Amino acid sequence: MIIREKEPANLEMPFESLDGFITPNDKFYVRSHFPVPEIDLATWRLRIEGAVERPLELTYDELRARPSTTIPATMECAGNSRIFLQPKVKGVQWAMGAIGTGEWTGLSLGELLEEAGCSANACEVILEGADSGTIAEPPRPAGKIHYARSVSLGKARDGVFLALRMNGQPLTPAHGFPLRAIVPGWYGMAAVKWLQRIMVTEQRFHGYYQTVDYAYWEPGEGGKQLVPITEMQVKAAIARPGFNEVIAAGSAYVVAGAAWSAEAEIVKVELSSNHGDSWEEATLACEQAPNCWRLWEWNWNVPATPGRCVLLARATDSRGRTQPMDRDPDRGTYMINHCLPVEVEIR
Amino acid sequence: MIIREKEPANLEMPFESLDGFITPNDKFYVRSHFPVPEIDLATWRLRIEGAVERPLELTYDELRARPSTTIPATMECAGNSRIFLQPKVKGVQWAMGAIGTGEWTGLSLGELLEEAGCSANACEVILEGADSGTIAEPPRPAGKIHYARSVSLGKARDGVFLALRMNGQPLTPAHGFPLRAIVPGWYGMAAVKWLQRIMVTEQRFHGYYQTVDYAYWEPGEGGKQLVPITEMQVKAAIARPGFNEVIAAGSAYVVAGAAWSAEAEIVKVELSSNHGDSWEEATLACEQAPNCWRLWEWNWNVPATPGRCVLLARATDSRGRTQPMDRDPDRGTYMINHCLPVEVEIR
Repeated sequence: MIIREKEPANLEMPFESLDGFITPNDKFYVRSHFPVPEIDLATWRLRIEGAVERPLELTYDELRARPSTTIPATMECAGNSRIFLQPKVKGVQWAMGAIGTGEWTGLSLGELLEEAGCSANACEVILEGADSGTIAEPPRPAGKIHYARSVSLGKARDGVFLALRMNGQPLTPAHGFPLRAIVPGWYGMAAVKWLQRIMVTEQRFHGYYQTVDYAYWEPGEGGKQLVPITEMQVKAAIARPGFNEVIAAGSAYVVAGAAWSAEAEIVKVELSSNHGDSWEEATLACEQAPNCWRLWEWNWNVPATPGRCVLLARATDSRGRTQPMDRDPDRGTYMINHCLPVEVEIR
Repeated sequence: MIIREKEPANLEMPFESLDGFITPNDKFYVRSHFPVPEIDLATWRLRIEGAVERPLELTYDELRARPSTTIPATMECAGNSRIFLQPKVKGVQWAMGAIGTGEWTGLSLGELLEEAGCSANACEVILEGADSGTIAEPPRPAGKIHYARSVSLGKARDGVFLALRMNGQPLTPAHGFPLRAIVPGWYGMAAVKWLQRIMVTEQRFHGYYQTVDYAYWEPGEGGKQLVPITEMQVKAAIARPGFNEVIAAGSAYVVAGAAWSAEAEIVKVELSSNHGDSWEEATLACEQAPNCWRLWEWNWNVPATPGRCVLLARATDSRGRTQPMDRDPDRGTYMINHCLPVEVEIR
């Protein structure tokens, strides 16, 4: 793993090592905002409270005793590929590998909300982690805050999964043991780790991690507005060749990578070796699932002439969304899905 | 006037010169976010649009031809007294004088909304100025934005005034000619200058000037939330003596100032010359009006012993709200109403 930050741990998979549909746990990227909280299973509870008729308090064993399902889902950090932004911006300097696909085992949040009984005026559900700490840069709240994100009640009922296991294993502390929210199709900031409290509310939530942080500017009739980041944007990423890889002139090279999009299938991946003047279609792997990446390969006839060459990949999804060539600056330091150049050396 | 910033102009009244209930136009503080926009009355219109049945477009003459009323209102900049914050924070370094009371002549926004007919689902009204520019610091939207703030539909119907005149004169360019919103009881950031567009919306607005800027952190059950700044907080300010003023030992000195609060009357102002150990009541002026300041005086028997002395003033309003001694750090760089020390030299 590439260490992007040591404490708290922010670890990236070297994306050149992409090898199969499922990302092994020890290669799955780690994004931490605060140190790993100390969890004592004897006292830890998942609490469901707020605007509910019957607040719930569940132990780890009670959660494990329930019928479970397993779903695959790709999770990309909202700041993945930030290292490509020019000029350089603040934040963890992720390259391509703050992404992975896991098989998550657990239960749906909707099932628990049904048991708790949401009030008639409930509109949002706040997911709160046990991790907490202080924010350094203004505008910031004073004192310690917990990591927390909200989803609409509709999304909470039918789109949030509570994972106890990741790829068949209990979650590791770094990945949120004992319980992690999984919001398939959304960037990883919604996948709250060390989940401890689910708060049903009758007002929209405007916490730090969906206003000052993990938000972007959306144009509207009344002017640009600060909106929480949610769905992953259509994107193809090149795993091989890696940056500055040396490739034999005139050889046949298998360019490989993955592509993904929210609530849609990937239907096309194209590659260009001439800055987007022309594109060739890649071969898509058969294996795909909702809100999961699709692997792809492209047989590249490497030019016979030595020199530098830039490769671009571009994905299109089943909703007709295609990756843009240019960066949208209203996205700040997040949602980086414009076509990213991988420069190599042909020798 | 004290020049706090030259371009765009940010000008402060020297608060020692406080002299009467109404603040003359040439002493009224000026807060600008962008340069004064060029307004051509031949083409300028006030547009009322969005979720309305009958969009309106009104010329300056049409607005002037309507029956007008005149209301007094105190306006304080949300960052007034920022110079007192320790450690020093970013933003215009206002002392005490980013405040004034004007008599505003114009019409109520409610009257125009009635004519336009708001949709059944309308919930907010965005007030947009003609001033525009770019934001330098992230998180920021890209490109030019207009200054804009929203109020709830209820507040827009019964709490927003559209001023054509200020203290009997047409507005000056610096004060928003031809039209300025006045939101009595709210900090000045709601008093949008160069008003050109009133947009009725069916969604809550999250523009720059009520999220990243002019917002504070409010504790709630789901954690701290970023909330737009609205009402002025109860506050007394000492106009005389000024900072570091030299006062004769053993003399009688008339300490003078003003006090204000939103949607309440000032019922008590107290002064302390011993760091809050004991307080004495000031005499309140008779003249007062809703959402206006109330002037006060306190006859101080200056100690006979030379030395430094700190004066504190503390207001209480008719709702029982009293100024706190300590700063609430969740307010960031705004809403500065804790008791502010005025240090003088007794000689």
